[in-house]
Amino acid sequence: MIQTKGYAAQSPTTELAPWNFERREVGPHDVQFSISYCGVCHSDLHQIKNDWFPGIFPMVPGHEIVGTVTKVGDHVKKFKVGELAAVGCMVDSCRECENCKQGLEQYCLVGNIQTYNGRGKDGVPTYGGYSNTIVVHEDFVLHISDKLSLPAVAPLLCAGITTYSPLKHWKVGKGHKLAVLGLGGLGHMAVKFGVAFGAEVTVLSTSAKKEADAKKLGAHKFVVTSDPEQVKAVTGYFDFILDTVSAEHDMDLYLSLLRTNGTHICVGVPSEPYSIRPFSVLGGRKSLAGSGIGGIPETQEMLDYCAEHGIVSDIELIDIKNIQTAYERMLKGDVRYRFVIDMATL
Amino acid sequence: MIQTKGYAAQSPTTELAPWNFERREVGPHDVQFSISYCGVCHSDLHQIKNDWFPGIFPMVPGHEIVGTVTKVGDHVKKFKVGELAAVGCMVDSCRECENCKQGLEQYCLVGNIQTYNGRGKDGVPTYGGYSNTIVVHEDFVLHISDKLSLPAVAPLLCAGITTYSPLKHWKVGKGHKLAVLGLGGLGHMAVKFGVAFGAEVTVLSTSAKKEADAKKLGAHKFVVTSDPEQVKAVTGYFDFILDTVSAEHDMDLYLSLLRTNGTHICVGVPSEPYSIRPFSVLGGRKSLAGSGIGGIPETQEMLDYCAEHGIVSDIELIDIKNIQTAYERMLKGDVRYRFVIDMATL
Repeated sequence: MIQTKGYAAQSPTTELAPWNFERREVGPHDVQFSISYCGVCHSDLHQIKNDWFPGIFPMVPGHEIVGTVTKVGDHVKKFKVGELAAVGCMVDSCRECENCKQGLEQYCLVGNIQTYNGRGKDGVPTYGGYSNTIVVHEDFVLHISDKLSLPAVAPLLCAGITTYSPLKHWKVGKGHKLAVLGLGGLGHMAVKFGVAFGAEVTVLSTSAKKEADAKKLGAHKFVVTSDPEQVKAVTGYFDFILDTVSAEHDMDLYLSLLRTNGTHICVGVPSEPYSIRPFSVLGGRKSLAGSGIGGIPETQEMLDYCAEHGIVSDIELIDIKNIQTAYERMLKGDVRYRFVIDMATL
Repeated sequence: MIQTKGYAAQSPTTELAPWNFERREVGPHDVQFSISYCGVCHSDLHQIKNDWFPGIFPMVPGHEIVGTVTKVGDHVKKFKVGELAAVGCMVDSCRECENCKQGLEQYCLVGNIQTYNGRGKDGVPTYGGYSNTIVVHEDFVLHISDKLSLPAVAPLLCAGITTYSPLKHWKVGKGHKLAVLGLGGLGHMAVKFGVAFGAEVTVLSTSAKKEADAKKLGAHKFVVTSDPEQVKAVTGYFDFILDTVSAEHDMDLYLSLLRTNGTHICVGVPSEPYSIRPFSVLGGRKSLAGSGIGGIPETQEMLDYCAEHGIVSDIELIDIKNIQTAYERMLKGDVRYRFVIDMATL
């Protein structure tokens, strides 16, 4: 077994603290890499707090993981020692269902194996990227370009793919009016991708304070949703809304901003159910859709696209000892736009 | 003015009773026809009861109207005296917005003019088909075939187009697994159209009692949703659910029956908002969509399709004096599958 250093929550009510644990030995198809950086996702906090479902503790969060390969199994073909490597939200899936066969492992019909707060096929809990090293089957390890800033690549593994995938699936691009709801880790990536794909991008925000930042990220328009006049001006305006908000919000209001046949795509996960008036979708043949991360082939496609177009996340690098402060600031929306842990501080 | 006999609700709390009123004279582009039959829609009751919004009283309901042309305006080109004619849920729209120009008058951006419980461009309230005659601009009057049973055609004007339109829009047909939720006026038409379009059609019902009827309508499968074993067998099974239910129901349960990328299409209008857990759409990239009736060109297309394929509604013809009893039976689901008023009894 491989001795591993990490940070874990021992229960939903304790703060993260150093914790040593073991990872499996490198199997014939496994890649081991030393973790250089790990992004901090809002879902890390949701899971530690048992917001969605009862978690497995101790929990080592982190699913935006980048580093350098230190060891490969005998049969590994995709990676060599010394190369950059990354892991996102999944470390395995059934590989046999129709979704897995289509590269939609995120929708594995048996259930994919999450990078942390899950159990491997061996029944052993999975531990995430707030740690110094990780061992993953090569099929779930991704290549990253050395042309991009390595810490700024980390958030692409969740915030990046979670916004890239739906924009690709719904073919959002030239001629479309796209609204991005929420300007956090996911939202700022949605703006970058939406602009790169040629859409007219509007950031919808409850606060006027973010306008300059939104424009700096490339957004063409900015709408303060607490201002009725501004809201009225974009009623029935958007083809798509990409909704990255993971707190409760007024879905009927946002659905009213869609034009006929428009689609509101949810990628954030509030703890409470959405409440939707029937006429909000019937009037104008509108859709409320959901999208979850992305499959492995599409994640690689996204990373390659980012390398080609120079797209990375805007980050604030932190010391792992400050993780609790980072969580508190994240809850207040005080982050531009993703905290990334420098694992050298572990 | 044209003296008209009808049945009206004088307020949301009174029963329907005879009421005489006036309709406008036949203008140059108007068609007047004597009403032979009018279907009874669940939305008639919703509107009388102010379930959705405050109504305009006295209210003469009815938007599934068929009859014979008795007079046409000087400039009318589409209709001649003595021909069959029909009117559905709308009698006018702005005609200038992008939706109207595309024949999507049901989604008129200014708001279409409903056949009853609306106001015409002249500000006068509109009165529906529970009456002996009606005057409508020729552009909103539809042709019907004399090959079909006339009373059984009436429900096509709402129940028919409301189910035909989404099945066409989402291209439901061969190779698709379609579930129809609710086997009432809309549901039984959804089964007929789904089968005609080549889909495998399953009726989802809370009661086992409707199985024989569902099969007789052409449904290939029947699932009792109160039986966990039967529900389990169709979890992740359907490409589309056409949801005709206008009472509250467990949306998360039904969304779980969709396969990856599946779409749940709502055409019923419950009085309360839908409650939807975020993971119900995120897990499997599912959509909840709405669809409202259909545009005028598509309604004509549907009527022509029905004439060609011998499709009509299954009806129970009633005397208008029994309308209150019909409402009570409709609320209990005791109708196969649409009450149609024989207007000769007025």
